[in-house]
Amino acid sequence: MNALTPLGMVSEFPSENQTNDTLLAGAAEEQKDYFVVRDGQKFAGMHLLVDLWGATNLADPEHIDAALREAALAAGATILHSHFHHFSPNGGVSGVVVLAESHISIHTWPERDFAAVDLFMCGCCDPYLSIPVLRRAFLPERVDIGEQRRGRVQ
Amino acid sequence: MNALTPLGMVSEFPSENQTNDTLLAGAAEEQKDYFVVRDGQKFAGMHLLVDLWGATNLADPEHIDAALREAALAAGATILHSHFHHFSPNGGVSGVVVLAESHISIHTWPERDFAAVDLFMCGCCDPYLSIPVLRRAFLPERVDIGEQRRGRVQ
Repeated sequence: MNALTPLGMVSEFPSENQTNDTLLAGAAEEQKDYFVVRDGQKFAGMHLLVDLWGATNLADPEHIDAALREAALAAGATILHSHFHHFSPNGGVSGVVVLAESHISIHTWPERDFAAVDLFMCGCCDPYLSIPVLRRAFLPERVDIGEQRRGRVQ
Repeated sequence: MNALTPLGMVSEFPSENQTNDTLLAGAAEEQKDYFVVRDGQKFAGMHLLVDLWGATNLADPEHIDAALREAALAAGATILHSHFHHFSPNGGVSGVVVLAESHISIHTWPERDFAAVDLFMCGCCDPYLSIPVLRRAFLPERVDIGEQRRGRVQ
Protein backbone atom coordinates (compact mmCIF):
# COMPACT_ATOMS: atom_id res chain seq x y z
CA MET A 1 0.00 0.00 0.00
CA ASN A 2 1.28 3.45 -0.64
CA ALA A 3 0.57 6.84 0.80
CA LEU A 4 -1.94 7.65 -1.91
CA THR A 5 -4.69 5.33 -0.74
CA PRO A 6 -7.03 8.27 -0.02
CA LEU A 7 -7.33 8.74 -3.80
CA GLY A 8 -9.35 5.58 -4.13
CA MET A 9 -9.33 1.92 -3.27
CA VAL A 10 -5.94 0.40 -3.95
CA SER A 11 -5.14 -3.26 -3.83
CA GLU A 12 -1.90 -5.15 -4.14
CA PHE A 13 -1.79 -8.85 -4.64
CA PRO A 14 1.14 -11.15 -4.87
CA SER A 15 0.41 -14.16 -6.99
CA GLU A 16 -1.72 -16.50 -4.95
CA ASN A 17 -2.24 -19.26 -7.44
CA GLN A 18 1.33 -20.29 -8.07
CA THR A 19 3.66 -21.75 -5.51
CA ASN A 20 6.92 -20.05 -4.67
CA ASP A 21 8.69 -23.18 -5.89
CA THR A 22 7.15 -22.83 -9.31
CA LEU A 23 8.00 -19.16 -9.44
CA LEU A 24 11.55 -19.64 -8.33
CA ALA A 25 12.07 -22.44 -10.80
CA GLY A 26 10.62 -20.20 -13.48
CA ALA A 27 11.73 -16.63 -13.17
CA ALA A 28 15.01 -16.94 -11.33
CA GLU A 29 16.60 -19.78 -13.23
CA GLU A 30 15.31 -19.46 -16.79
CA GLN A 31 15.27 -16.43 -18.97
CA LYS A 32 11.66 -16.04 -20.05
CA ASP A 33 11.94 -12.92 -22.13
CA TYR A 34 14.01 -14.20 -25.04
CA PHE A 35 13.27 -12.98 -28.57
CA VAL A 36 11.01 -15.31 -30.53
CA VAL A 37 10.92 -16.25 -34.19
CA ARG A 38 7.54 -16.64 -35.87
CA ASP A 39 6.59 -16.57 -39.55
CA GLY A 40 10.21 -15.80 -40.32
CA GLN A 41 10.22 -12.70 -38.08
CA LYS A 42 12.37 -12.31 -34.98
CA PHE A 43 10.88 -10.04 -32.33
CA ALA A 44 10.83 -9.34 -28.59
CA GLY A 45 7.18 -10.09 -27.89
CA MET A 46 3.58 -9.99 -28.96
CA HIS A 47 1.57 -6.99 -27.79
CA LEU A 48 -2.20 -7.25 -28.13
CA LEU A 49 -4.36 -4.15 -27.69
CA VAL A 50 -7.85 -5.37 -26.89
CA ASP A 51 -10.89 -3.07 -26.74
CA LEU A 52 -13.97 -4.57 -25.08
CA TRP A 53 -17.30 -2.95 -25.93
CA GLY A 54 -20.70 -3.65 -24.34
CA ALA A 55 -18.83 -5.26 -21.44
CA THR A 56 -19.90 -5.98 -17.85
CA ASN A 57 -18.21 -6.27 -14.43
CA LEU A 58 -16.08 -3.21 -15.11
CA ALA A 59 -16.42 -1.54 -11.69
CA ASP A 60 -15.36 -4.51 -9.56
CA PRO A 61 -11.60 -4.52 -8.91
CA GLU A 62 -11.59 -7.95 -7.27
CA HIS A 63 -13.35 -9.52 -10.24
CA ILE A 64 -11.01 -7.71 -12.63
CA ASP A 65 -7.92 -8.78 -10.72
CA ALA A 66 -9.04 -12.42 -10.72
CA ALA A 67 -9.84 -12.25 -14.43
CA LEU A 68 -6.49 -10.77 -15.36
CA ARG A 69 -4.59 -13.29 -13.28
CA GLU A 70 -6.55 -16.12 -14.91
CA ALA A 71 -5.82 -14.55 -18.30
CA ALA A 72 -2.10 -14.44 -17.53
CA LEU A 73 -2.01 -18.08 -16.49
CA ALA A 74 -4.03 -19.15 -19.54
CA ALA A 75 -1.32 -17.60 -21.71
CA GLY A 76 1.38 -19.50 -19.86
CA ALA A 77 2.74 -16.45 -18.04
CA THR A 78 4.29 -16.11 -14.57
CA ILE A 79 2.73 -13.44 -12.33
CA LEU A 80 5.12 -11.27 -10.31
CA HIS A 81 2.92 -8.43 -9.06
CA SER A 82 -0.49 -6.90 -9.53
CA HIS A 83 -1.92 -3.53 -8.60
CA PHE A 84 -5.45 -2.25 -9.01
CA HIS A 85 -6.86 1.19 -8.42
CA HIS A 86 -10.59 1.86 -8.09
CA PHE A 87 -11.37 5.50 -8.74
CA SER A 88 -14.75 5.57 -6.94
CA PRO A 89 -17.28 2.98 -5.69
CA ASN A 90 -19.00 2.68 -9.07
CA GLY A 91 -16.22 4.14 -11.15
CA GLY A 92 -13.53 2.85 -13.41
CA VAL A 93 -10.67 0.56 -12.48
CA SER A 94 -7.06 0.79 -13.61
CA GLY A 95 -4.90 -2.22 -13.07
CA VAL A 96 -1.68 -3.88 -14.09
CA VAL A 97 -0.29 -7.37 -13.69
CA VAL A 98 3.50 -7.48 -14.03
CA LEU A 99 4.68 -10.77 -15.52
CA ALA A 100 8.06 -12.43 -15.87
CA GLU A 101 7.19 -12.14 -19.57
CA SER A 102 6.03 -8.45 -19.55
CA HIS A 103 2.55 -7.26 -18.46
CA ILE A 104 -1.21 -7.10 -18.74
CA SER A 105 -3.04 -3.83 -18.10
CA ILE A 106 -6.70 -2.81 -17.99
CA HIS A 107 -8.55 0.48 -17.81
CA THR A 108 -12.33 0.45 -17.56
CA TRP A 109 -15.08 2.99 -18.23
CA PRO A 110 -18.17 1.34 -16.66
CA GLU A 111 -20.36 4.27 -17.71
CA ARG A 112 -19.58 3.39 -21.34
CA ASP A 113 -19.41 -0.40 -20.88
CA PHE A 114 -15.90 -0.08 -22.31
CA ALA A 115 -12.54 -1.48 -21.26
CA ALA A 116 -9.09 -1.16 -22.84
CA VAL A 117 -6.80 -4.12 -22.16
CA ASP A 118 -3.26 -4.66 -23.32
CA LEU A 119 -1.37 -7.91 -23.12
CA PHE A 120 2.36 -7.83 -23.82
CA MET A 121 4.08 -11.18 -23.60
CA CYS A 122 7.52 -12.37 -24.54
CA GLY A 123 9.07 -15.81 -24.68
CA CYS A 124 6.83 -18.79 -25.21
CA CYS A 125 3.60 -17.22 -23.92
CA ASP A 126 0.63 -16.81 -26.24
CA PRO A 127 -1.52 -13.78 -25.31
CA TYR A 128 -4.27 -14.98 -27.68
CA LEU A 129 -4.97 -17.70 -25.11
CA SER A 130 -6.02 -14.93 -22.70
CA ILE A 131 -8.83 -13.70 -24.95
CA PRO A 132 -11.39 -16.43 -24.08
CA VAL A 133 -10.81 -15.65 -20.38
CA LEU A 134 -11.53 -11.96 -21.00
CA ARG A 135 -14.67 -12.86 -22.95
CA ARG A 136 -15.97 -15.02 -20.10
CA ALA A 137 -15.11 -12.48 -17.42
CA PHE A 138 -16.52 -9.36 -19.08
CA LEU A 139 -19.10 -10.73 -21.57
CA PRO A 140 -18.37 -8.06 -24.20
CA GLU A 141 -20.70 -7.64 -27.17
CA ARG A 142 -17.72 -6.75 -29.36
CA VAL A 143 -13.97 -7.32 -29.07
CA ASP A 144 -11.47 -5.39 -31.20
CA ILE A 145 -7.96 -6.87 -31.21
CA GLY A 146 -4.88 -5.14 -32.56
CA GLU A 147 -1.64 -7.15 -32.80
CA GLN A 148 1.77 -5.49 -32.58
CA ARG A 149 5.08 -7.33 -32.72
CA ARG A 150 7.38 -5.36 -30.45
CA GLY A 151 11.11 -5.15 -31.05
CA ARG A 152 11.06 -6.56 -34.53
CA VAL A 153 14.57 -7.21 -35.73
CA GLN A 154 14.83 -5.83 -39.26
CA MET B 1 6.65 -5.23 -1.34
CA ASN B 2 5.24 -8.66 -1.90
CA ALA B 3 6.28 -12.16 -1.00
CA LEU B 4 8.03 -12.69 -4.30
CA THR B 5 11.01 -10.45 -3.63
CA PRO B 6 13.43 -13.41 -3.86
CA LEU B 7 12.75 -13.47 -7.60
CA GLY B 8 14.63 -10.24 -8.08
CA MET B 9 14.83 -6.70 -6.84
CA VAL B 10 11.41 -5.18 -6.48
CA SER B 11 10.72 -1.56 -5.77
CA GLU B 12 7.53 0.31 -5.03
CA PHE B 13 7.37 4.04 -5.09
CA PRO B 14 4.53 6.31 -4.31
CA SER B 15 4.74 9.55 -6.22
CA GLU B 16 7.34 11.69 -4.51
CA ASN B 17 7.26 14.68 -6.74
CA GLN B 18 3.67 15.73 -6.37
CA THR B 19 2.06 16.87 -3.18
CA ASN B 20 -0.92 15.08 -1.75
CA ASP B 21 -2.88 18.28 -2.17
CA THR B 22 -2.23 18.31 -5.89
CA LEU B 23 -3.15 14.66 -6.15
CA LEU B 24 -6.31 14.97 -4.12
CA ALA B 25 -7.38 18.00 -6.10
CA GLY B 26 -6.71 16.05 -9.26
CA ALA B 27 -7.73 12.45 -9.07
CA ALA B 28 -10.43 12.52 -6.44
CA GLU B 29 -12.42 15.51 -7.56
CA GLU B 30 -12.07 15.62 -11.33
CA GLN B 31 -12.64 12.86 -13.80
CA LYS B 32 -9.41 12.64 -15.77
CA ASP B 33 -10.23 9.76 -18.04
CA TYR B 34 -12.95 11.31 -20.18
CA PHE B 35 -13.13 10.49 -23.88
CA VAL B 36 -11.41 13.06 -26.07
CA VAL B 37 -12.23 14.41 -29.53
CA ARG B 38 -9.35 15.02 -31.95
CA ASP B 39 -9.35 15.39 -35.73
CA GLY B 40 -13.08 14.65 -35.65
CA GLN B 41 -12.55 11.33 -33.84
CA LYS B 42 -13.88 10.58 -30.36
CA PHE B 43 -11.81 8.04 -28.42
CA ALA B 44 -10.83 6.94 -24.92
CA GLY B 45 -7.13 7.65 -25.07
CA MET B 46 -3.91 7.73 -27.03
CA HIS B 47 -1.72 4.64 -26.73
CA LEU B 48 1.85 4.99 -27.96
CA LEU B 49 4.01 1.90 -28.42
CA VAL B 50 7.61 3.08 -28.37
CA ASP B 51 10.55 0.82 -29.25
CA LEU B 52 13.97 2.15 -28.24
CA TRP B 53 16.98 0.70 -30.08
CA GLY B 54 20.66 1.28 -29.33
CA ALA B 55 19.61 2.52 -25.90
CA THR B 56 21.55 2.87 -22.61
CA ASN B 57 20.76 2.75 -18.86
CA LEU B 58 18.48 -0.24 -19.33
CA ALA B 59 19.66 -2.27 -16.31
CA ASP B 60 19.19 0.43 -13.67
CA PRO B 61 15.72 0.32 -12.10
CA GLU B 62 16.16 3.56 -10.15
CA HIS B 63 17.14 5.46 -13.28
CA ILE B 64 14.27 3.89 -15.19
CA ASP B 65 11.77 4.70 -12.46
CA ALA B 66 12.89 8.32 -12.34
CA ALA B 67 12.75 8.58 -16.14
CA LEU B 68 9.23 7.16 -16.35
CA ARG B 69 7.95 9.42 -13.60
CA GLU B 70 9.48 12.43 -15.35
CA ALA B 71 7.91 11.23 -18.61
CA ALA B 72 4.50 10.98 -16.93
CA LEU B 73 4.71 14.48 -15.51
CA ALA B 74 5.92 15.90 -18.84
CA ALA B 75 2.74 14.56 -20.43
CA GLY B 76 0.62 16.22 -17.75
CA ALA B 77 -0.28 12.97 -16.01
CA THR B 78 -0.94 12.23 -12.34
CA ILE B 79 1.10 9.36 -10.86
CA LEU B 80 -0.74 6.95 -8.56
CA HIS B 81 1.68 4.03 -8.20
CA SER B 82 4.83 2.60 -9.68
CA HIS B 83 6.40 -0.83 -9.51
CA PHE B 84 9.71 -2.01 -10.94
CA HIS B 85 11.18 -5.48 -11.09
CA HIS B 86 14.86 -6.12 -11.77
CA PHE B 87 15.40 -9.66 -12.97
CA SER B 88 19.11 -9.88 -12.09
CA PRO B 89 21.92 -7.40 -11.25
CA ASN B 90 22.75 -6.71 -14.90
CA GLY B 91 19.52 -7.98 -16.36
CA GLY B 92 16.35 -6.49 -17.73
CA VAL B 93 13.86 -4.36 -15.87
CA SER B 94 10.07 -4.51 -16.09
CA GLY B 95 8.15 -1.60 -14.70
CA VAL B 96 4.80 0.11 -14.67
CA VAL B 97 3.61 3.51 -13.57
CA VAL B 98 -0.14 3.60 -12.94
CA LEU B 99 -1.62 7.01 -13.73
CA ALA B 100 -4.95 8.65 -13.04
CA GLU B 101 -5.04 8.79 -16.86
CA SER B 102 -3.98 5.13 -17.52
CA HIS B 103 -0.34 3.88 -17.46
CA ILE B 104 3.24 3.81 -18.70
CA SER B 105 5.13 0.51 -18.89
CA ILE B 106 8.67 -0.46 -19.81
CA HIS B 107 10.46 -3.74 -20.46
CA THR B 108 14.19 -3.67 -21.16
CA TRP B 109 16.65 -6.08 -22.76
CA PRO B 110 20.06 -4.58 -21.85
CA GLU B 111 21.88 -7.34 -23.72
CA ARG B 112 20.24 -6.07 -26.93
CA ASP B 113 20.24 -2.36 -26.03
CA PHE B 114 16.48 -2.58 -26.56
CA ALA B 115 13.49 -1.34 -24.56
CA ALA B 116 9.76 -1.54 -25.26
CA VAL B 117 7.76 1.30 -23.70
CA ASP B 118 4.03 1.91 -23.86
CA LEU B 119 2.30 5.07 -22.85
CA PHE B 120 -1.47 5.03 -22.60
CA MET B 121 -3.05 8.32 -21.61
CA CYS B 122 -6.59 9.56 -21.54
CA GLY B 123 -8.08 12.96 -20.89
CA CYS B 124 -6.02 16.00 -21.66
CA CYS B 125 -2.58 14.35 -21.37
CA ASP B 126 -0.30 14.23 -24.40
CA PRO B 127 1.98 11.17 -24.36
CA TYR B 128 4.07 12.65 -27.19
CA LEU B 129 5.43 15.10 -24.60
CA SER B 130 7.00 12.09 -22.84
CA ILE B 131 9.15 11.16 -25.84
CA PRO B 132 11.90 13.80 -25.33
CA VAL B 133 12.24 12.62 -21.72
CA LEU B 134 12.73 9.03 -22.91
CA ARG B 135 15.31 10.19 -25.47
CA ARG B 136 17.30 12.05 -22.81
CA ALA B 137 17.10 9.21 -20.30
CA PHE B 138 18.01 6.31 -22.59
CA LEU B 139 19.89 7.99 -25.48
CA PRO B 140 18.50 5.61 -28.13
CA GLU B 141 20.01 5.56 -31.61
CA ARG B 142 16.56 4.85 -33.05
CA VAL B 143 13.01 5.34 -31.78
CA ASP B 144 10.03 3.62 -33.43
CA ILE B 145 6.66 5.04 -32.39
CA GLY B 146 3.31 3.43 -33.12
CA GLU B 147 0.14 5.39 -32.32
CA GLN B 148 -3.12 3.67 -31.45
CA ARG B 149 -6.33 5.46 -30.56
CA ARG B 150 -8.03 3.22 -28.01
CA GLY B 151 -11.80 3.05 -27.67
CA ARG B 152 -12.58 4.83 -30.87
CA VAL B 153 -16.29 5.55 -31.08
CA GLN B 154 -17.43 4.57 -34.59
